Amino acid sequence: MAYNLAPLQNLIDQFERMQGIGHKTAQRMAFYVLGLSHEEAKAFADAITDAHTKIKQCRICCDLADDELCPICKSENRDKSVICVVEDSRDVAAIERTHEYKGTYHVLHGAISPMDNIGPDQIRIKELLARLSDGVVDEVIMATNPTVEGEATAMYISKLLKPMGITVSRLAYGVPVGADLEYADEVTLSRALEGRSII
Amino acid sequence: MAYNLAPLQNLIDQFERMQGIGHKTAQRMAFYVLGLSHEEAKAFADAITDAHTKIKQCRICCDLADDELCPICKSENRDKSVICVVEDSRDVAAIERTHEYKGTYHVLHGAISPMDNIGPDQIRIKELLARLSDGVVDEVIMATNPTVEGEATAMYISKLLKPMGITVSRLAYGVPVGADLEYADEVTLSRALEGRSII
Repeated sequence: MAYNLAPLQNLIDQFERMQGIGHKTAQRMAFYVLGLSHEEAKAFADAITDAHTKIKQCRICCDLADDELCPICKSENRDKSVICVVEDSRDVAAIERTHEYKGTYHVLHGAISPMDNIGPDQIRIKELLARLSDGVVDEVIMATNPTVEGEATAMYISKLLKPMGITVSRLAYGVPVGADLEYADEVTLSRALEGRSII
Repeated sequence: MAYNLAPLQNLIDQFERMQGIGHKTAQRMAFYVLGLSHEEAKAFADAITDAHTKIKQCRICCDLADDELCPICKSENRDKSVICVVEDSRDVAAIERTHEYKGTYHVLHGAISPMDNIGPDQIRIKELLARLSDGVVDEVIMATNPTVEGEATAMYISKLLKPMGITVSRLAYGVPVGADLEYADEVTLSRALEGRSII
């Protein structure tokens, strides 16, 4: 790209650094910014700084929070005896959308992945163990991703927790609701068969 | 989305306002920002403000510029007797990449499109006519997009310029280099036949 304008090129580079954003999209985004009014551009820039300064991690569950504690850990209506362990804050949002779960969460901020040099110390396992020491928690639901890394993380944590007398459960595997059986992969299908229930 | 965190939701909304960015992508981008270091987030926000404050339009050709004039209008190596008229600054970049064109440009910032309430006065036609008054320009190449709107704009401008004794040319239509004839549409193919040259 032959843009000799440094401020524009810099903005394009900033957008392009995001995962999944190619050069063309980054360019389109930069032109979008140039097309904004001065107030809108300022609001955009402020939103970035604001989000970055104001959002921290909840002291208890490591989820994102704009305060010492996140809204879920603060709430008195949530069942503090159940912890659902997820890899990422987005997973919390996904489970919250079901409106079915009333317990609390623990966000690991990653999964064990030796290939990427992420071991148990690089994710928030220590913080999870600290939460279990006071005996309030009965059950830990492992809701890490159904990938090799997520699986390994769930196994690793369950091995640590079982000697503490805590029930460790795992999300069910099966065919997604609304999907076509024809397109389900073999592993998912065999897990769905394994986990079949009487109707 | 059940994010109760206002700064995060605000940032997601900002990204989502961009054309072609859906909710999931906007969310991914917002999380990317949260994952940046403080310096990086500041650099990102500054890039937006910077691009917006520093980039203006060239006084002559209406292309983007970080100065009174754009680098092309400033340059003494460009042929000032030829003007290539394009709809958008990105088109300038595209033509510059060919390294074939040595004339100057004129950026219309749009095309005539009555459906979108864009008439001749909403795009930079007045500025183009002003450039032609001193008799330096011999040829104007219409390089608007090969769409109905681009075509109409090219026609409209050529009708204005012809009485002034200026040669008005149009980019050639034809099959794109490297494409498969089989997939070329009828209109493009018949234009390619019409414009065939002796080899």
